[in-house]
Order: sequence, then structure tokens, then C-alpha cells
Amino acid sequence: MRFARIATPEGLTFAVIDGEGTDPKNLTAKQIAGTPYTEPEYTGKEWALSDIRLLAPTLPSKVVAIGRNYADHVAEVFKKSAESLPPTLFIKPPTSVTGPGAPIRIPEFATNVEFEGELAVVIGKPCKNVSEENWKSVVRGFTIVNDVSSRDLQFSDGQWARAKGIDTFCPLGPWIETDIDSFDLDDLPIKAHLTHEGKTETKQDSNSDQMIMSVGEIIEFITASMTLLPGDVICTGSPAGTEAMVPGDSIAIDIPGIGTLENPVERA
Amino acid sequence: MRFARIATPEGLTFAVIDGEGTDPKNLTAKQIAGTPYTEPEYTGKEWALSDIRLLAPTLPSKVVAIGRNYADHVAEVFKKSAESLPPTLFIKPPTSVTGPGAPIRIPEFATNVEFEGELAVVIGKPCKNVSEENWKSVVRGFTIVNDVSSRDLQFSDGQWARAKGIDTFCPLGPWIETDIDSFDLDDLPIKAHLTHEGKTETKQDSNSDQMIMSVGEIIEFITASMTLLPGDVICTGSPAGTEAMVPGDSIAIDIPGIGTLENPVERA
Repeated sequence: MRFARIATPEGLTFAVIDGEGTDPKNLTAKQIAGTPYTEPEYTGKEWALSDIRLLAPTLPSKVVAIGRNYADHVAEVFKKSAESLPPTLFIKPPTSVTGPGAPIRIPEFATNVEFEGELAVVIGKPCKNVSEENWKSVVRGFTIVNDVSSRDLQFSDGQWARAKGIDTFCPLGPWIETDIDSFDLDDLPIKAHLTHEGKTETKQDSNSDQMIMSVGEIIEFITASMTLLPGDVICTGSPAGTEAMVPGDSIAIDIPGIGTLENPVERA
Repeated sequence: MRFARIATPEGLTFAVIDGEGTDPKNLTAKQIAGTPYTEPEYTGKEWALSDIRLLAPTLPSKVVAIGRNYADHVAEVFKKSAESLPPTLFIKPPTSVTGPGAPIRIPEFATNVEFEGELAVVIGKPCKNVSEENWKSVVRGFTIVNDVSSRDLQFSDGQWARAKGIDTFCPLGPWIETDIDSFDLDDLPIKAHLTHEGKTETKQDSNSDQMIMSVGEIIEFITASMTLLPGDVICTGSPAGTEAMVPGDSIAIDIPGIGTLENPVERA
């Protein structure tokens, strides 16, 4: 099942996206009374996807991200081996979250801003000290995140909060897919396509089989320290192929079974 | 005026703390209908301070902290000069926030856990791109924060999110003092008193005149990147004198004009 947050002519609401595939023509947004974290209670209202706008599917209280979780990306960004630089946690603030189709807005001082296409985990219930093997019991579903990062600020600041925490630097969407058992996490392709001056090229073309810590290990690691709440998001790390974006570009992340998260890039 | 969040026999509420000084015997908690971010509307209910429990005075959507903002602390922790290591931003998650008197709970893996007594700024309205000289227009008041930090995790992780983001590692309180003009930020003493095995010693004994970036500069710096929301907290940095705490200890931070934030330390 797919849960979305949508802007309708009557206001903002959560909805279930009904229909097959990802072509908006075949999809309907059915309003639900509550949130995605309980069984859906339909109000009876529904809209064609062309009549609504998809928003970030969750308003997380926190976005916890794992850095350096793909060996190939550690090599390209940090010029070191993954053994010498193990995965590390960082936090993106809720104000960095934006939705599908919304612009990534780059301020002048944030130079060398790169996309990072990642599988995102959406938490379904309050949890602490979750063991690796029980991770599915606390997860509501998967979505896509673009962990937008100013590579220059990341290295000059040392701490990554600013480089990765600027308003609009956390596009999420298009929706939460709850059928987590339909995903093979040992073989999930993750691709990023950058459109620059009208030409689209595939820049990230990797697979979740390159992850150093598994989703279960990440959840055990985070919840040993922090309580996670419904709607909280975990970014599971970026594979190699990240590259700078400039205003006028557009960046699309594809993960099969979820769909595509696409955002234009603007000057803030 | 002092705004608090309190637990009463009838439930949780915001309140104005009425009375002179900080002796609970002289103070009354007067319930307000809304939040601290508008003019208070009194409901008429009130309690003696002995009949309620003070909670963290705000439930922030984010806690943005500035690291390395006191030259003496940079020297003691990083063994470097402040010129070679400029201030940097990091984020403490909302789930790390706890209230006055509530235990700081240290898990086994978080070793070398130190207190950091700091002046905390509580934001009063949504804001972005605030200039240094306009900082007072977006601030609701000041409170005290203890930026509890596992020094070992801080250095082994590289990123500080886990070392400083563990549940209970962000005590806040005892209340928000809104009379910001009554503070001389060029001469505000900040002290931390550690009680270990029944003996209390003053460990931090510094002054805001040691800050590298001023409160106005910090707010301009953060809001160039991130929108701040009512209730968000800025930790303005820790002076020298931080030291490890162990279960059984108690740590009290004093800032004149606000009061004292005291928390016992426990094993999680």
C-alpha cells in the first residue's frame, strides 16, 4: 500500500494512492482520516493524481542519516577505504524536508552541491533498543530521499549539519510503500538521473547490495541511542556517483517498487 | 516573564511562573491557555511549585547547537587554537530533550560522558535570514541547556549526532525567561557544579564574554541556512571546565537571571 501526503483544492491531507504502476493517469488519491501509521480509514473523498500535488509523505520529528555506508561512495568522497572510515550518524533537520517536484533551492554560499539518492526507511511506531532481526516490526515502509549536500561546507565545517541541513536539502517521496516484504534488500537498484542543459544522464547506478550496514543493523545502531517516532526517517546512505548540481538542473532518483523522486534545482 | 511547561495533577500544560527569585516556596505556576509564543491568556488555575513538576520548557522541532564557540573549551577538548578550528553547527534531536530534575541516563557504550553548561536561546517566531542586529525580534527568551556529550563517541564517530543525541542528553530548563534586555550578554556568568560522592565542586566558572560568535551572529549564521520555528532551541556553546560524570552524580548549571538546571545522572 502507498501512503502519500497531498495538497488538494480542499487543503492538505494524508491519502492512500490507489492503482497499478507509477503513471499518474492510472492512480487515484483516496483521502484517509488519520495518519499513515494506523490502518487507513477512508473518508470517501478521492482525486485524480492530476488534480492534487504530492508533498513529502511524512513530517518527521527527525531525519537520522547514516554516512559512509557504501564503500564506493566513501572512496569517491573521502578518498579513503571504508575500513578506515566506518559509518557514522548525522541528523538532517525537519525544516530541510521538501516534497516531490518542489525545488531544491541552493543559496550562494553553499557551493559544490551534490545529490545523493538513497533508500529511506519510514518508522511506524515509537521504538527504542530494537534488535537487528526485529527491524521490520517498527518500520511503516520505504520511500526515497535525496540527501542533498554542499560538499564544500561539509568539509569546511567538519560537522555536516549545515551542509546537509539547508532548507529544501531533504527531498522525500513520492510516497511510503508499506509492502516491505516485496523488496529484496540484497539486490535493490538505486539510480540517479541528472538533467543538465536539457540532457539527461544516469549518474548513480548502484545497488543496495553495496551497503556496509544493513537496514536492520542501522535500526539497531540508531535505536540503541535514540527513540524513533512514527514518521521519523532513516536515510540508509548514498552509493557512488554523486555529482554537483546547478540551478536549472533537475535530479530524479529511481528505486524499483517505490517509484521516482524528481526535483528541479533553483538558486535560493 | 517566566514560561514553563509543567506536569500537574490534571495533566501537562504551559504556565507562567509568578513570584520573585528562584526559591520554589515563593513561586506559583499560573496555567495559560496557549503556548509561550503568544501573549499569555490565563485560565485562572494555579499551583504552588511544590505541587507540580517542571518539564523541559519547550518541545523544540530542532535543537541547533554551535560547537567550538568558547576559545578555552576548544583548547581543552580539541587541543587546538580557536583560530585553527572555527565554530561549527550540529543538531541534537528532539528525543534527547529532558527536563529539570529528570535523570541523564548513560548507556554502557557511551563512555566519558561530560556536562556542558550553556546559555540556550528559545525562538519565538518562524524566521529565516535574520540579520545579526535584528536577533532580538525572533527570540522568545533564554533558558539553560546541558549539552551532554560522550567525548569518546564524539571523537570515534567524527560526526557528533550520536555522542550528543542520546535520549536524555539535552536537559533544558528550568523555564524560559523572556526579559532578554535584562541580560548583559557581554558579562553573563555561566557555572556548572558537579556533585560526586556527596561532594559538590564548581567545574565550569566562565562568562559569556568568552563567546567567539555572539548570539546575534549565531542567529544570522543559522538562519542563512535553516528556517527556525517557535520553540526551537539554539545552544550557544560551552565554556571550559567540562568534565566526565558518572551514575550517582548530580550536575547543576547556574546562569543568573534564569536560575539553575539540575539533573541527576543514572545508568540507562
